[in-house]
Amino acid sequence: MTYCVAVNLEEGLLFGGDTRTNAGVDHISTYKKLYTFSNDSTHAIAILCSGNLATSQYLVETFRREIELEENNLLTQKSLFDCAKYAGRILYDIIQESAHEDSDKLGDFSSSIILGGQIKGERPRLFLVYPQGNFIESTKETPYFQIGEHKYGKPIIDRTIHHDIPLNQALNSILISLDSTIKSNLSVGLPMDILRYEKDSFDLSRYRRIEEYDEDLLKMRQYWSNELKQLLAELPTPEI
Amino acid sequence: MTYCVAVNLEEGLLFGGDTRTNAGVDHISTYKKLYTFSNDSTHAIAILCSGNLATSQYLVETFRREIELEENNLLTQKSLFDCAKYAGRILYDIIQESAHEDSDKLGDFSSSIILGGQIKGERPRLFLVYPQGNFIESTKETPYFQIGEHKYGKPIIDRTIHHDIPLNQALNSILISLDSTIKSNLSVGLPMDILRYEKDSFDLSRYRRIEEYDEDLLKMRQYWSNELKQLLAELPTPEI
Repeated sequence: MTYCVAVNLEEGLLFGGDTRTNAGVDHISTYKKLYTFSNDSTHAIAILCSGNLATSQYLVETFRREIELEENNLLTQKSLFDCAKYAGRILYDIIQESAHEDSDKLGDFSSSIILGGQIKGERPRLFLVYPQGNFIESTKETPYFQIGEHKYGKPIIDRTIHHDIPLNQALNSILISLDSTIKSNLSVGLPMDILRYEKDSFDLSRYRRIEEYDEDLLKMRQYWSNELKQLLAELPTPEI
Repeated sequence: MTYCVAVNLEEGLLFGGDTRTNAGVDHISTYKKLYTFSNDSTHAIAILCSGNLATSQYLVETFRREIELEENNLLTQKSLFDCAKYAGRILYDIIQESAHEDSDKLGDFSSSIILGGQIKGERPRLFLVYPQGNFIESTKETPYFQIGEHKYGKPIIDRTIHHDIPLNQALNSILISLDSTIKSNLSVGLPMDILRYEKDSFDLSRYRRIEEYDEDLLKMRQYWSNELKQLLAELPTPEI
């Protein structure tokens, strides 16, 4: 499985994803699920993938090849809405190409992606693109998307993410959300990839891979567990 | 769906469950999933049910009828292990009776239960009984069981429940776990039922139903959301 989450806030965008891919519990590997595409001036785009790994890799390869060879590509779209439409069309085509009449027996080729970023002239935007090729955009009321094994990490996001919270605070929230999922579910695993995009910067270089023994992660994890226990100890217990 | 959780700690047992039953989103009702059986002296037993409601009700009815009419019943077993075995046999029989050759088309009749309590001469014990009739017992390393829609509420349990924490602290943890699930998933809903059993008391009267506008719940929820946000604001943000 996979767990990826992205948020679109007043100050910018955040993307986070784990890197575990598994087919059963005895065939696990590490694969990146966060990719960026940029021309350093007018188009800064990131995607997070969940679902069939072959489909995701095919999609990323197609994006790259078309950027190199075609005039109509991810970095020549006029808006991020058009990027989502472009990505959705390619994603749908790949899944159709992989599927066969008897594909029920062969497995599930579908994949969902979160696509976000900024194109000059627009505010930063965030889309969730479905295997069917259609897509939805985040809003101020619901400024985040999750794909993959999303349940474990949803409560902390639901309780703490609002459109106007500082980017640093939201970053902590998605780190905890990812770490909680990794702790509670074997099919989601470290390292995790984090990308931070500040509005109007067109800079996708603020990226970090966090490995198992990353000191910041260990510190954060211990701090969080201790403080949660402390909070529970202080929370007034209802009389029962 | 359903979400139920129970813990077995040094000081005693806690049971918590929501009360939502649904078949699709437009057919929801409130049904109790927590039942108690006791003779006020040697047997104090509670169960939490998830899965097919007809199966759960059939099971509870059978327990009650056999307590009334049969010599071999839930309140005459010599140990809680025997109670789990007794309950597992009945549960399996009910599911087999309900299922038909074409039961795939008719729906899923299965149900899982958490069964816990104390029988004179033993420590308090906690079991998870599967639809197949077999069962596992909680341990000091893993002192809790969850059934139903368990993912949303697992991280808080994983981070804070240990065998030796005070019962009040664990009670707060399972209240937050239940409330988080209710907040993040439509198929789990208020009111919730909570039962607190203190070791060696053989008293199952410490029960409370918490409704939607319960003041303690609203206070707890607000306190928790505010404090989480505060914690996230104070958590040292990793440089990205």
